[in-house]
Amino acid sequence: MKKLINKPEDFGRETIEGIILAHPESLKMVNGNFRCLVRADEKKKSKVAISTGGGAGHLPVFLGYVGYGLADGVTVGNVFTSPAFADMYEVGMAIDNGAGVLQLYGNYGGDKMNFAMAAEMLDMEDIRVTEVRGTDDVASAPKGEEDKRRGVAGIFYAYKIAGAAAEKMFNLDEVTRLAQKAVDHTRTMGVALSPCILPEAGKATFTIADDEMELGMGIHGEPGIERTKLMTCDDTVSYMLDKIMRDYEYKAGDEVSVLVNGLGATPKEELYIAYRKVSQILAEKGIGIHRRYIGEFATSLEMAGISVTLFKLDGELKELLDAPAYTPFFQQFR
Amino acid sequence: MKKLINKPEDFGRETIEGIILAHPESLKMVNGNFRCLVRADEKKKSKVAISTGGGAGHLPVFLGYVGYGLADGVTVGNVFTSPAFADMYEVGMAIDNGAGVLQLYGNYGGDKMNFAMAAEMLDMEDIRVTEVRGTDDVASAPKGEEDKRRGVAGIFYAYKIAGAAAEKMFNLDEVTRLAQKAVDHTRTMGVALSPCILPEAGKATFTIADDEMELGMGIHGEPGIERTKLMTCDDTVSYMLDKIMRDYEYKAGDEVSVLVNGLGATPKEELYIAYRKVSQILAEKGIGIHRRYIGEFATSLEMAGISVTLFKLDGELKELLDAPAYTPFFQQFR
Repeated sequence: MKKLINKPEDFGRETIEGIILAHPESLKMVNGNFRCLVRADEKKKSKVAISTGGGAGHLPVFLGYVGYGLADGVTVGNVFTSPAFADMYEVGMAIDNGAGVLQLYGNYGGDKMNFAMAAEMLDMEDIRVTEVRGTDDVASAPKGEEDKRRGVAGIFYAYKIAGAAAEKMFNLDEVTRLAQKAVDHTRTMGVALSPCILPEAGKATFTIADDEMELGMGIHGEPGIERTKLMTCDDTVSYMLDKIMRDYEYKAGDEVSVLVNGLGATPKEELYIAYRKVSQILAEKGIGIHRRYIGEFATSLEMAGISVTLFKLDGELKELLDAPAYTPFFQQFR
Repeated sequence: MKKLINKPEDFGRETIEGIILAHPESLKMVNGNFRCLVRADEKKKSKVAISTGGGAGHLPVFLGYVGYGLADGVTVGNVFTSPAFADMYEVGMAIDNGAGVLQLYGNYGGDKMNFAMAAEMLDMEDIRVTEVRGTDDVASAPKGEEDKRRGVAGIFYAYKIAGAAAEKMFNLDEVTRLAQKAVDHTRTMGVALSPCILPEAGKATFTIADDEMELGMGIHGEPGIERTKLMTCDDTVSYMLDKIMRDYEYKAGDEVSVLVNGLGATPKEELYIAYRKVSQILAEKGIGIHRRYIGEFATSLEMAGISVTLFKLDGELKELLDAPAYTPFFQQFR
C-alpha cells in the first residue's frame, strides 16, 4: 500500500487539478475554488438542481456523479472529511436554476451538520432546499433504525433516480420524493480484506490479520459486524445477501438492480466471481435482475474488499434507472 | 493482497461465468467453451474480423475489448498464460465474416507461437489471416529492437484504431496496416509499487521493499529497467515521459492521446495526480492532448502501479480514435 503521490497535503488539490485538466468539458470550478465543482455544460432553466458532497478518497464518489442525468454540483472535502458549509453554499448558489436544490449526500454527522447550515444560507437567498441522505449500509445500524445508517455505494442509485427525474423536469417535491424512495429501496453490505492509508496520516486506518476479513465494514474503515477468518467468495456473498435479504422484503417475481462494487484494490476478476454468486442466489429465489453495475462505484482509497447492493425496482424506478446519464466516471447511453 | 475467490483452480472459469451472466447481450461463448468468447450482436457480412487473446488476470485486457468498434472475439488463457491454439482457431472460425481475420495481440512468446498455429489452421479453411502484435513497452527492449518489446496497456489504441477501421468496412490489408500504424505510434512505460499474487501459486510474483518501486516493470512482473527508492508521483511521471519521449519523435505542435492506466490496486485519485503532471509536461513542450483515457485499461490482478502511454496522432488516426466503440468494459459514444 505504497502511494504514488507528491506531498501528502497536496493530495486532494492535485487530484482535482488532474480531473479538471482531464475533463474540462464536463466539470468546472466555482470561483476558482477546487473544492467546489459543477457541471460545465449549459444550465437548464427551471431544472431542479442536485447538490452533493463529502470527503475525498472515494472516487468516483462524489464528484464522479456530477453530470447529465445525475448531480449538478459537488463540494469536495479533505480525505474522509466533510467539506465546509460555505463551500456547499457556493455550489448551491452556482447550480440553482430557479427550481430549488436537492442536497443528496451520505448520512454522516459532519456532512449532515454542514449541509444543514448551507441549506439555511441558501434559504436566505430564497432558494428552496430539500435534503435526502443515503442510508444504505445495513451493517451500520439495526432494522428499524434506518436513519442511523451510513451511506455507501448504494447512493449511486439515489443519484441515478433523482438525476433522471430532474432531467425530466419533475419539480423539487417530486425529485425529492423519488430520491428518498430510491434510498428506501436500496440495501448494501460490504466486506474489507485490507485497510487503506490516509495520505496525511501515513498509516493504515485499521489493522487486520493476513487470514482475516471484516464483515460489514464502512468505507472509512468503520468497524463492521464481525471479524472472521477469510471466507471463500461464494460464502462471503451468501453471507452478505443473507443480511440484505433479511433486512427488506424480496420475493419471487421481484426485480432488482445489482451493484457489485470494488473498494479500491480488488481486481475486476474478483468482482465478477462475486457477481456470479449473486446471480445464482437471486435466480434460486426467483428474483429477476434488471441492469447490473460491476466495477468501482465508491472506493476507500486502496482498501481491498467489495460491497454488494440490491436496489428493488418498481415501474417508476425502473424507467428512471434506464434513462441515459453520463459523466467522465460513469456512462449509460442505453 | 488477500483474495476474494473460491478454489484457486476455478478462478478463471468463474470469472468468465460471472462476465457472461452479467453481459449476455454483449458476449457469448463459442460451443459452450468459456475460453472462447465472441460478440453477441449480429455479425456483419464482409466486415474484417479481429481476433485477440492472451492470459487472464489483466481485465479489461483482453475480453473487455470485444465489442462494437473494437475486437470481435477473444481466446482466454489461464492467468498470465497463453491460450491454446485450438481455441484461437475456434474463435477465428466463429468470427470470420468472409473478409479475413486480423489476429491482434500482445507480443509474448507463447501467444505468438499459438496464434501462428491458429493462423495456419484457419488458412486451411481458406480464411485469410494477418497478424499485428502490440509492442508498446519501451522498457522491454532498446530502441531499434521494437519487435522484441512486450505489449502492455497501449494495445488499447491498436484495438481502437483497427476496430474502427473494420466497422468502416475497410479491407483486411487496410485494417492490418492501420493496426500496425497504431502500434508504431504507441509508447508505454510502467512502474510497479507492489506485486500481485497468482491465484494458483498463492504467492507474490516478486518481492519489493516497502520504500522501493520498480521502473519499467511488465504486467506479468517482468523485471524493469531499475529499482529505486519510492519517488514522488511527479518525479515518476517525469522519468516515464522522458523515457517515452527519447524513444520516438514528439515536437511542438504534435497531438497525442494520453492513457494513464492503473495496474490494479492504485486508486483513481493517484491516476489523476499522474495525469496532472503528464498534462503539465506536454503543455510545456507545446504538445496537444486529444482525448485522454484515465482508469484501468490493462491490469495485473492486484498489482499497485501505473503506466503512461502516448499515442501520437495524425489525421487518419484521429478520425478512427474518435469513432464510437462500446463493450461492457469500455464505452465511447462521443
